Amino acid sequence: MDKLKVAVLGATGLVGQAFISMLSKHPWFEVEAVAASPAKAGVKYGEAVSWHLEEPIPPEVSGQTLKEPVPEKLSKDIDLVFSALPSNAASEVEPLFARAGYIVVSNASPFRMDPDVPLIVPEVNPDHLRLLGEQRRRRGWRGALVKNPNCSTAILVLTLKPLMDSFGLKRAVVTTLQALSGAGYRGVPGMAILDNVLPYIPGEEEKLMYEPRKILGTLEGGWVKHAEIPVSATTTRVPTLHGHLESVHVELGEDTDTRSLVEALENFGGLPQKLGLPTAPPAPVIVRHGEDRPQPRLDRDAGGGMSVVVGRVQHASLLGDAWFRYLVLGHNLVRGAAGNAILIAELMVRLGQKH
Amino acid sequence: MDKLKVAVLGATGLVGQAFISMLSKHPWFEVEAVAASPAKAGVKYGEAVSWHLEEPIPPEVSGQTLKEPVPEKLSKDIDLVFSALPSNAASEVEPLFARAGYIVVSNASPFRMDPDVPLIVPEVNPDHLRLLGEQRRRRGWRGALVKNPNCSTAILVLTLKPLMDSFGLKRAVVTTLQALSGAGYRGVPGMAILDNVLPYIPGEEEKLMYEPRKILGTLEGGWVKHAEIPVSATTTRVPTLHGHLESVHVELGEDTDTRSLVEALENFGGLPQKLGLPTAPPAPVIVRHGEDRPQPRLDRDAGGGMSVVVGRVQHASLLGDAWFRYLVLGHNLVRGAAGNAILIAELMVRLGQKH
Amino acid sequence: MDKLKVAVLGATGLVGQAFISMLSKHPWFEVEAVAASPAKAGVKYGEAVSWHLEEPIPPEVSGQTLKEPVPEKLSKDIDLVFSALPSNAASEVEPLFARAGYIVVSNASPFRMDPDVPLIVPEVNPDHLRLLGEQRRRRGWRGALVKNPNCSTAILVLTLKPLMDSFGLKRAVVTTLQALSGAGYRGVPGMAILDNVLPYIPGEEEKLMYEPRKILGTLEGGWVKHAEIPVSATTTRVPTLHGHLESVHVELGEDTDTRSLVEALENFGGLPQKLGLPTAPPAPVIVRHGEDRPQPRLDRDAGGGMSVVVGRVQHASLLGDAWFRYLVLGHNLVRGAAGNAILIAELMVRLGQKH
Amino acid sequence: MDKLKVAVLGATGLVGQAFISMLSKHPWFEVEAVAASPAKAGVKYGEAVSWHLEEPIPPEVSGQTLKEPVPEKLSKDIDLVFSALPSNAASEVEPLFARAGYIVVSNASPFRMDPDVPLIVPEVNPDHLRLLGEQRRRRGWRGALVKNPNCSTAILVLTLKPLMDSFGLKRAVVTTLQALSGAGYRGVPGMAILDNVLPYIPGEEEKLMYEPRKILGTLEGGWVKHAEIPVSATTTRVPTLHGHLESVHVELGEDTDTRSLVEALENFGGLPQKLGLPTAPPAPVIVRHGEDRPQPRLDRDAGGGMSVVVGRVQHASLLGDAWFRYLVLGHNLVRGAAGNAILIAELMVRLGQKH
Repeated sequence: MDKLKVAVLGATGLVGQAFISMLSKHPWFEVEAVAASPAKAGVKYGEAVSWHLEEPIPPEVSGQTLKEPVPEKLSKDIDLVFSALPSNAASEVEPLFARAGYIVVSNASPFRMDPDVPLIVPEVNPDHLRLLGEQRRRRGWRGALVKNPNCSTAILVLTLKPLMDSFGLKRAVVTTLQALSGAGYRGVPGMAILDNVLPYIPGEEEKLMYEPRKILGTLEGGWVKHAEIPVSATTTRVPTLHGHLESVHVELGEDTDTRSLVEALENFGGLPQKLGLPTAPPAPVIVRHGEDRPQPRLDRDAGGGMSVVVGRVQHASLLGDAWFRYLVLGHNLVRGAAGNAILIAELMVRLGQKH
Repeated sequence: MDKLKVAVLGATGLVGQAFISMLSKHPWFEVEAVAASPAKAGVKYGEAVSWHLEEPIPPEVSGQTLKEPVPEKLSKDIDLVFSALPSNAASEVEPLFARAGYIVVSNASPFRMDPDVPLIVPEVNPDHLRLLGEQRRRRGWRGALVKNPNCSTAILVLTLKPLMDSFGLKRAVVTTLQALSGAGYRGVPGMAILDNVLPYIPGEEEKLMYEPRKILGTLEGGWVKHAEIPVSATTTRVPTLHGHLESVHVELGEDTDTRSLVEALENFGGLPQKLGLPTAPPAPVIVRHGEDRPQPRLDRDAGGGMSVVVGRVQHASLLGDAWFRYLVLGHNLVRGAAGNAILIAELMVRLGQKH
Repeated sequence: MDKLKVAVLGATGLVGQAFISMLSKHPWFEVEAVAASPAKAGVKYGEAVSWHLEEPIPPEVSGQTLKEPVPEKLSKDIDLVFSALPSNAASEVEPLFARAGYIVVSNASPFRMDPDVPLIVPEVNPDHLRLLGEQRRRRGWRGALVKNPNCSTAILVLTLKPLMDSFGLKRAVVTTLQALSGAGYRGVPGMAILDNVLPYIPGEEEKLMYEPRKILGTLEGGWVKHAEIPVSATTTRVPTLHGHLESVHVELGEDTDTRSLVEALENFGGLPQKLGLPTAPPAPVIVRHGEDRPQPRLDRDAGGGMSVVVGRVQHASLLGDAWFRYLVLGHNLVRGAAGNAILIAELMVRLGQKH
Repeated sequence: MDKLKVAVLGATGLVGQAFISMLSKHPWFEVEAVAASPAKAGVKYGEAVSWHLEEPIPPEVSGQTLKEPVPEKLSKDIDLVFSALPSNAASEVEPLFARAGYIVVSNASPFRMDPDVPLIVPEVNPDHLRLLGEQRRRRGWRGALVKNPNCSTAILVLTLKPLMDSFGLKRAVVTTLQALSGAGYRGVPGMAILDNVLPYIPGEEEKLMYEPRKILGTLEGGWVKHAEIPVSATTTRVPTLHGHLESVHVELGEDTDTRSLVEALENFGGLPQKLGLPTAPPAPVIVRHGEDRPQPRLDRDAGGGMSVVVGRVQHASLLGDAWFRYLVLGHNLVRGAAGNAILIAELMVRLGQKH
């Protein structure tokens, strides 16, 4: 089979680089076009990018010329568009691509909460892709716009979903310890974070509170009915490079024990695993039983960065019989960004929803 | 007034050093004796200690000869004994001193939960010192044993107390981000913590769950009736030098608003402030209104390390009308250890409970 | 005596903040005006600045309104102007102030190597201030422009000067390990420096090679004859907050032993010490004899940040009888920037060279 | 071909783990026995080891039972013994193995400077293996003892060798910035190194001064005549996980230019490359031309950790026409320890020097 041709918008940022790196080894997709801010258009990718990943720039992309992120500048051959654009550019540009007939899978935050825009973690709510019918009707788009959730959300809901399915879920209280790369390469000065923790990440707490309700919601009458799951989150930045750690307390819908809860997490799998999608990890949730795990540096690459790692599952019995606590860690650039978007695209291709 | 003569047991460890440093500038106390493990007895303090604080070793202590931590080796002149002994030594040695007639104010964990041992944060439960009568009756001690709580507990209860008093307190859910110095100088290898977070601190979660219940409890019939306040805690170690940060969610006993909650915190004060004790900070709880505070490096020295700094007070209304969240930071070696113990001693001296 | 009124240009940057902080406690000077980029003019200092020092913003400066950095906007009362402007602004603005009659003591790099501009470390070459006569004649300025060297240079020459005076100096080979604050608050991203060293600091190596030759030079016929001291430097950035560490090898002009070399360093003092200038440290060079010193975190505040700390002085006898090696550490924001400039100003005031 | 059976002594330490990890993927060798301190004998490797590498413990080794590190406890089938023992154990135990007929390739420091013990970097001085004839005659051993140099030495000499061969070498002045893993997992406390640099590594400077002279020496009359190359080194510890960075100044034997010097480095290769040994990197020295390289985190894994990366090659012309400077980085656990030892073993096997 010929590989599908994809474009990456916002290809020079840190998430853009993660897209380029993952796509360069992809069995189905090949990078046909790269776009960044108009100021860089016309420059070779390898010269325009300040490359920050440990693996080198893929040579087949390094020589490509950056384009402006507008549909007219892309070849009609492009099958899929990945967007890692910054928010303001994304809100302008992504609809243009969708209108022009492109499937856009985007990591940017605008439109995530729009009722006709699927917000997808493929193991959790693949059925929400059906919103695209409504999206096309409503907006008159020939293409489509599908969204990745916020990085911390994607990691969290992979654990909330099996708990909700097995036991019901009444409340979640979350504190995150997020890595520097979540803020982009220049996002956090060295002086700000050395011997320090930043207790505030703009906009992050709201995303963690509202996005899970949509992702965990059910499709009713063509629309997503948001789940009634109160989440409260405090989000902090710690001096780690990659890997968001989340300390979670949940009140379940019924009593259970830690063994059952661990089983529910370990047995969790979804459509990507059933379909054997190339980027799907064998286990989306890995439970480590050592008492000092998960650790960002040791666990962030589990399942190629596509698994989340859970540890320290305990009964928080003082709070009530149905309260439990655990920690979960995921790679923010992979499962929390580029990897999840690529998995969405694989799912759409496999389900025949491409074009 | 002549200064009171004090001894410091476990004087060479990191908390011992904090005691030495704070006491060297103390208006009421002077270090008359230092003791450490028997292996170091006979050696000058300045030679035996591997000094790790930024301020230099006080010269008047540097030349003192280390003694064995047993009552017979100390002069009868000693008015007060501070203990920063490790747990196993503390459980053996501290009762010997109390039996021999010394007032022992200890930072070590053994005996903290014994019903006749006061576990004190001076602004929160100074009245619990009355347990000492029962302690003497029961144990036949001429002296007394008073305990500091765990560092994270001391910081936390300074915020829980005013909330409980003003609004009632039904539940607290806590995630800590604790500094390296809480584990002792050699406690956490550099390789373990660089680009990493450790999600587990042995024994810490239990202390945070049970110690606040005792400290916030009420004296009834000569005993402490533990408060019925369920606390659940996940404790982590992050790459900071000093300053434990705690992310707190509380369910209050009644609805309120963030302004009232901030007022309750800011107006909090106690006996140490009323009595003008030398180590009492003007405000035990400082609320910072910048959205990115408290930060460990910037806020840990507030009030000379004796204040805790609160920030990001918010209504966690999704969880319920009475749920709020905030962050609190305190200096683990000062309010969380040596400073709190010294404040206890000042209170006892002022209340005439010395000897 | 009434305090002299000073202005600080570039007052909102990191070095500007160090000026403000040091001047707020100064016995002779008081901050009468603060200036920053025109975009911030009219805003209160406390609102415009993103304050990054551990000590709080001095309240008497916090409420001052930022001015544009041009002479017309300053009161005629100003006695002295300190400049912490960025290079491009400094090269435009500083001559305007000097022409308008102000004494400008500047930390910015432009003009440093101009033959009629004194480049001063007060203990090393106070006599170079005599260049100002030539400067005024040549440029027709009523005021004057005096320069601070680069931070690493200031630290280095405090050790080279006593060696040169005692033994002669043939060569110096230097590797620096410089702190983050030397690059400004946003200069080094956290992602760039966590678990990393940056082996390159733009422009730094040249400054370390050429500035010492001027500072160590001799005044002949009204001009500075640069010292013929070859210096080669490799400059790196390491994950420390403050304190530049320099590993130095020197070939002296004659054989000696380490004891004599240590004596020469320890006995070094200069005009600031003789005159008892307020910012002069008792010892500009402190030699620590512990084998694991100097360390940035432990030694950067020695002498209030105005002393440099030397350690590990050794005979590098394999290289030749006259080769020695040592490490030297200094606080880059104090001795390497604001503190050295303030000491220059004190010297000028005391020598009557103000106005 | 059947794989050769190897034993690893000191298998549970950090270098031991690096041996286990590299050997588990080795095409010629397989781990047949693991030994550690007698206290751990009888315990399964996977249970006894506190594993600190990012890749998981090889399952085929995890289940092996640890033996005491004495020849009688090892099977006679063992073809090669790798030693990562601590110094004191190594000095006792390694001779026993050599006497008992085993080939021992050791990373431990004892015996390195003995005249009949080859100290080998395979690209630099493979001919020194001929010392083994003398070693056997003199000591009456049936086996042999071959040594790895100190980690910083191995990295340095890979650059000194091509320079010496092409231009002669008169002097080298080195400052190292070494990673935490060089001190072992517990070697450097987190509190010692956060926001800090340690300017002293016990014993390291001497090793860097004397080992290169032996390695770069020539075999004359059956013995190594040490090279007359004065090296002076200051060694520091910085907060990086892996990768020793070295700032080098050299005085060559003749004038040249940076282009020629870069060519000499880039063209360097040796017997391991000619023989195509499995662990030999294609280029033992890689020169990066970006002005901000090498960086520990980005470059330490070059050539699988077996290449050293050079950058910032410059003419230090102020010092003299023949002075140059550059930085070199190598992975201390791979080229600086386990990898170099394995490459020595491969060379010996290929040259028929096994048994």
